[in-house]
Amino acid sequence: MQRMVEWITDDEDPRIADYRDVRERDLVGRRGLFVAEGAVVLRGLLDSPFALTRSILVAEARLPGLSELLARVPPGTPVFAASQAVMDTIVGFPIHRGILALGETPPPRDPASMLSDVGAGGLVLALSCIANHDNMGGLFRNAAAFGVDAVVLDAGCCDPFYRKALRVSVGAVLQVPQVRLLPGADMVSGLQAAGFHVLALSPSGTEDLASIGGGGRVAVILGAEGPGLAPEVLARCETVRIPMAAGFDSLNVATTSGIVLHHLRSRSGDAG
Amino acid sequence: MQRMVEWITDDEDPRIADYRDVRERDLVGRRGLFVAEGAVVLRGLLDSPFALTRSILVAEARLPGLSELLARVPPGTPVFAASQAVMDTIVGFPIHRGILALGETPPPRDPASMLSDVGAGGLVLALSCIANHDNMGGLFRNAAAFGVDAVVLDAGCCDPFYRKALRVSVGAVLQVPQVRLLPGADMVSGLQAAGFHVLALSPSGTEDLASIGGGGRVAVILGAEGPGLAPEVLARCETVRIPMAAGFDSLNVATTSGIVLHHLRSRSGDAG
Repeated sequence: MQRMVEWITDDEDPRIADYRDVRERDLVGRRGLFVAEGAVVLRGLLDSPFALTRSILVAEARLPGLSELLARVPPGTPVFAASQAVMDTIVGFPIHRGILALGETPPPRDPASMLSDVGAGGLVLALSCIANHDNMGGLFRNAAAFGVDAVVLDAGCCDPFYRKALRVSVGAVLQVPQVRLLPGADMVSGLQAAGFHVLALSPSGTEDLASIGGGGRVAVILGAEGPGLAPEVLARCETVRIPMAAGFDSLNVATTSGIVLHHLRSRSGDAG
Repeated sequence: MQRMVEWITDDEDPRIADYRDVRERDLVGRRGLFVAEGAVVLRGLLDSPFALTRSILVAEARLPGLSELLARVPPGTPVFAASQAVMDTIVGFPIHRGILALGETPPPRDPASMLSDVGAGGLVLALSCIANHDNMGGLFRNAAAFGVDAVVLDAGCCDPFYRKALRVSVGAVLQVPQVRLLPGADMVSGLQAAGFHVLALSPSGTEDLASIGGGGRVAVILGAEGPGLAPEVLARCETVRIPMAAGFDSLNVATTSGIVLHHLRSRSGDAG
């Protein structure tokens, strides 16, 4: 079935105003909207249990290859099409992927309510002060791969709905339930009050990861590379380290999440 | 001890010709030279067991903070200093890190000779057709973190000495012994002839990673995301999968290396 499209021939067309100057808008935010780029992220958006698709903009040459995906767009959601030249002008740079979508950021959720929904054997990834969008995307990709039940972000984390984080996550940001804490909220207390056993990863951790068993409701806290987690966080958690070669104690935080989540899932005998 | 520096006031100075237009030269290669960027990679270069430092170029404002590092530069190796403005003009873009070095790519090694140097319990990371420089850097970072004895690259891999790969590796490319195979060389046969048990990672692998024991001389083959490893490679190896959540079978290749290397090192009870 061919999806009906609305043709855009003028880059000043008000219907596509939210797609103009994508990179500049990345920097200032979009007040409740986000931009998804590429077919993989669009698939994640269309399948998202919590993010709505407001509209889609496709380069003419991409239309035939995307017909299966576009057929799944809800009837009330406009699909705009433009020549590559008009699309490049709208976006502000050559948009080789030729497909963008506007999504609506989900409304804030109550952390306690979300955490109480996580069942026995549930696994939560809790992130503190992750400032790099590539890492944020990689963390969500791994959370999805290992069936994490929820991601908790503190107020110091960057925005997972930022275009590059969405892309690096291969759409996982739009799949994994997530909640952002308000500034000053205490992540450790919140997780413990919700009944989670809290593991905090640190090169100075007292337990080797390999000795950590699975089972129960577990939350894993990761901080930014470099500063790591605050001492007042580490003091209230079971601290865990990943043993490394002498003279080298540096792992990327997204890679760390993959190692920890794989270990916990393989111990509990359940990949999600 | 203050290191003597040679001042550059003219961006056409022939002494710094190899630093001109860094990005353009990234694309065409440097015939046996590479550019290291930032203090972390420079430290890896100065400590490298196989790569020589030809010269260093530092922005004036960075000199005081780098005195400890620069004191370790061998006496015959020139350290050039320039104002930030002259350095930006030389490099071709604003070089915020303010420190670059030229290194010499090590001469090619014989794969069989390098592999025969790997002892009992040795671990080799073998890479096939890794085309993305971020992934290449992340793979080397993980290889160093888990004390991999050698990295073997097939002819389809991108260059680990490319500036961005060096940076993402936090200098590990300059620390881990490595060898590149000639076009047409058979990676699996080479590893098996050298006495390695060869594991090939694939979403279609028959063994779960968690069931793989440590011990012995092991080589892990990883291919590019997307295409993965060729069927003729998989057919001759023990194939291993990382179990993932239903509907999501996608991990970044560098993250995959971290998961596999951590598992094998924790099973053999030795992080390197």
